[in-house]
Formats: sequence, C-alpha cells, structure tokens
Amino acid sequence: MTGPPTQPTRAPAIVLVEPQLGENVGFAARAMANCGLTDLRLVRPREPWPNPRARETASGADAVIDGARVFDSTAEAAADLHRLYATTARPRDQVKPVLTPPAAAAELRAATARGEASGVLFGPERTGLDNDDVARADALIVAPLDPAFRSLNLGQAVLLVAWEWWQAAAETPAEALPLGDSRPANREELEGFFDHLFAELDAAGFLRVVEKRPIMVRNLRNLFLRAQLTEKEVRALRGVVKALSRGRGGGTKGTGDRLVDE
Amino acid sequence: MTGPPTQPTRAPAIVLVEPQLGENVGFAARAMANCGLTDLRLVRPREPWPNPRARETASGADAVIDGARVFDSTAEAAADLHRLYATTARPRDQVKPVLTPPAAAAELRAATARGEASGVLFGPERTGLDNDDVARADALIVAPLDPAFRSLNLGQAVLLVAWEWWQAAAETPAEALPLGDSRPANREELEGFFDHLFAELDAAGFLRVVEKRPIMVRNLRNLFLRAQLTEKEVRALRGVVKALSRGRGGGTKGTGDRLVDE
Repeated sequence: MTGPPTQPTRAPAIVLVEPQLGENVGFAARAMANCGLTDLRLVRPREPWPNPRARETASGADAVIDGARVFDSTAEAAADLHRLYATTARPRDQVKPVLTPPAAAAELRAATARGEASGVLFGPERTGLDNDDVARADALIVAPLDPAFRSLNLGQAVLLVAWEWWQAAAETPAEALPLGDSRPANREELEGFFDHLFAELDAAGFLRVVEKRPIMVRNLRNLFLRAQLTEKEVRALRGVVKALSRGRGGGTKGTGDRLVDE
Repeated sequence: MTGPPTQPTRAPAIVLVEPQLGENVGFAARAMANCGLTDLRLVRPREPWPNPRARETASGADAVIDGARVFDSTAEAAADLHRLYATTARPRDQVKPVLTPPAAAAELRAATARGEASGVLFGPERTGLDNDDVARADALIVAPLDPAFRSLNLGQAVLLVAWEWWQAAAETPAEALPLGDSRPANREELEGFFDHLFAELDAAGFLRVVEKRPIMVRNLRNLFLRAQLTEKEVRALRGVVKALSRGRGGGTKGTGDRLVDE
C-alpha cells in the first residue's frame, strides 16, 4: 500500500530505495526476520509489488513481506523516523559521520532505547543511493570490506546491518558447552579415572621408565582435563580402559564388567 | 577438480557440503570475496561443477569460483585442516563447544596466527550438516538469531562467518568524519564565528532579554559545537550570518562582502 506510515515500530525500519529485483527484496526480508526486524519499506520498486519472487526468496518470512509498504519517495518513506542512516559502499564526498555496522548498531539500539524511530536506507543494486538520498541521512554506514571486492549483494548488505543490530543486544554467551543429559565430572570422578588409567598403564609397562613417568602422567592428565569431561564421559572412558586392559589378555581387574554407556 | 588439497592458504577454508543450488554457491563466493576469503571447497555439489549460475551470482568474485575445488567426501575436503568448525542452526545433541560467530572468528584468527589451517563446514540448504559431519568438527558455530525465524540462507550463513572473521582484524575506526578538502575548525575560527553571530543577533535585538542571554548564547554555542564544524563550514556560516543581516536592511558591517564558498 502507499500512504503515510502508521505508528512506527521502534526496531529500525529497512528502507530499500528503488530495489531492482524482487528476489533481493525477499532475501532482505529473510535477513530481517532472522534478526527480529519487521518494518520493510520500499521506495519505487522496479518490479510490481506484491512480488511472487520476493515471497519465494523470503523463504517463510511472510510477515515481513506482507507488512511491507511502498512509497513514492524516500522523503515519504522516512517521514516518521527520527534517526536515518544511509548505507554506502564507501564514504561519499559529504561531511557526515561514517560508522561501521557495529557502531551504527550501537546507535540504533540507543535510539530505540530513547523511544525514537530509526531507519536505514539501502540503494538500488547497481548504483547504490544517490547523493540526495545520502544527504538526507544523519550518518553513513560503510562496511569496511576487502577493498579489492567491496560489491555487496543487497540482501547481504541488509543482513550485515540487521545482524549487527540484533547482536548488539545479544545475551548469548560467546562460548558454551552443552552437556546434554550429563553434568561436568567432579574432581573425585576425574581422579578415579586417572587412578584407573595410570594403574592399567603401569600394569601394561607403559609407564615403566621411572624418570619419564611424572611427565607422561602430567601430559595425560592435561590432555583429558582440556576436554572438560562430563560425568558420563568419564564413565565411558573407564569402560574403554577396562575393555582395553581386558583385551590385553585377562586384565588386572577381572572381566565381565558392564561397559558404561553401552 | 577433485584431488588432495594443495598447500593451504591460512585464511579459513569455506567447505560447502552437498550444496543444492549453484546460485547459493555463487552467493557464498561473493561473500567470501567481500571478506578476504578465497579457499572454497565443495563436497558432492548437487549440480555439476563448474556451474554458470554460481558464476553469475558470484557477481565478479571469479577468483573464488575459479579456485573452488570439488571433493567426494567431507573427510577429504578437510584432510589438511588443523581446526574444523561446523555451522548449525542450533546446538546438536553432542558435547562440543558452541561458539557465536564472533567468538569463532577470534579462534579462527588465533589459528591463523599460529600458522594453522582452519575451515568451516556448511551443510545442504534444506537439511544442514548431518550428525557425522558435525562430529568431525572441533566446535560448532551457531548464530543466535531470532528463535522465531532461524532459517538462514546458505549465502547469508557464509557471509556471517566471513564477515566476523574479516571484522576480527578490522582496524577501521568505529566512527569517522571525513572532512573532504577541509580540516576541523580551530578554536580561534570558531570563536570568530560566535563573536560574529552574537554581535549580529544583539544588533537584531534577538538577545535583548538580559537575563536570558547567557543561556541562549550557551545553547547556540553547544548546537554548533556538536556539529564538529570544518574551517570551510565556519566560513560558510559566517557568509550566511552576513547575508542574513544584510537582508535585514543594510546590516551592521557593510555590504558587498564576498560570500565564502560561493
């Protein structure tokens, strides 16, 4: 539909100025949905809207496609926004702040926190934003890509900005180790395994060079400790040691024990 | 070509396992070129390789397309790599570290710094990596996207990892203000402008309420200082003040001065 914006959502609007291909609008919509953005605005799209190819490449981001609004001018599309950013491949000859995507994301989050509506302009695939649309913006967003190959697909450009916006509020720990239905092994369990292992290795003659034994023991301990073993894995390892030593021809601890985690 | 990897480049390899569509391979190649990656490896691509549609969507990233190598198995594709990461939409039921893309990028950079070859596995568009390929990896990379819409296009997934890898070494300042052929105004130039402005405003009677004058002066100073004016802009502003006061009916400083930046 064409018309004045309704009450804006506070998450940033993505404004595609004269997008050439419906499929790129769809890729942009999908990237938006990945990153919690919903407000898609199209200024004079080259292909008619609604566009079946856009829906196809949106790959299920139907809410974004269905909610997209079409405008006759960038000014109308941005009328209700308080903060406006323009994405360009390189800084233009305008005295205007140039932000990296993460820096822009921080500003967008701050604007949202203040209750301000913000938006990001993306130009046509072939040419990018014209200088007049760039001049409308408070600041530029330029992704510092490889200078040898700066040409970013429209959907990819939207993803970079949307991803940084999404990530700026992320609470996901940078690294996590999911333990399934187990829990980290405690020191008693670990030491029980080490005692078992070294006893079998001693019995097998593996640690027989006396002066080298402490180093070997230390190295083996470190290797297993780095793995941050779960309780379940410790039981499995003890089963392994037991099975191997049994295979040696009877073992030292009897046979027939159940293998853990079988 | 099919065959053992040659001497690896140390920037991470991108390994696409059974990619279904040539166009997605092209999008991935383009994203790689944007972010300084060149080593593309394909495991059993569904469409024949070379693939014209891939070259098309690569949009000029020909070096990546031309250098792509095809393998019969993930094991062969990864044989020369020291560190291997698997991208998945969500953590799998395996006790394996789960990293965000930026955390993985930091590890990839560290591996590169140690001279180790690393690679990142991406699964087929529809199904993602199977559990056996996931099990090959040292760690998972999971982008914490909107839980309501996690489905990431293959090219987009490659971009996220490539972008974070590229960005992890970025030296681009988060914010910059390009000044064109000018330079920041110095304090003398700024004060000269303020003196000029306030003199004209006094003459025009704008600052006549004595008790309010200091606040008004302070507010105007702050407004202009926030703009981080260049020397050229200060001259332009003085021209504006001069022109406006002249328009008031002759002004206080004579007429006919040249407008700066005309």
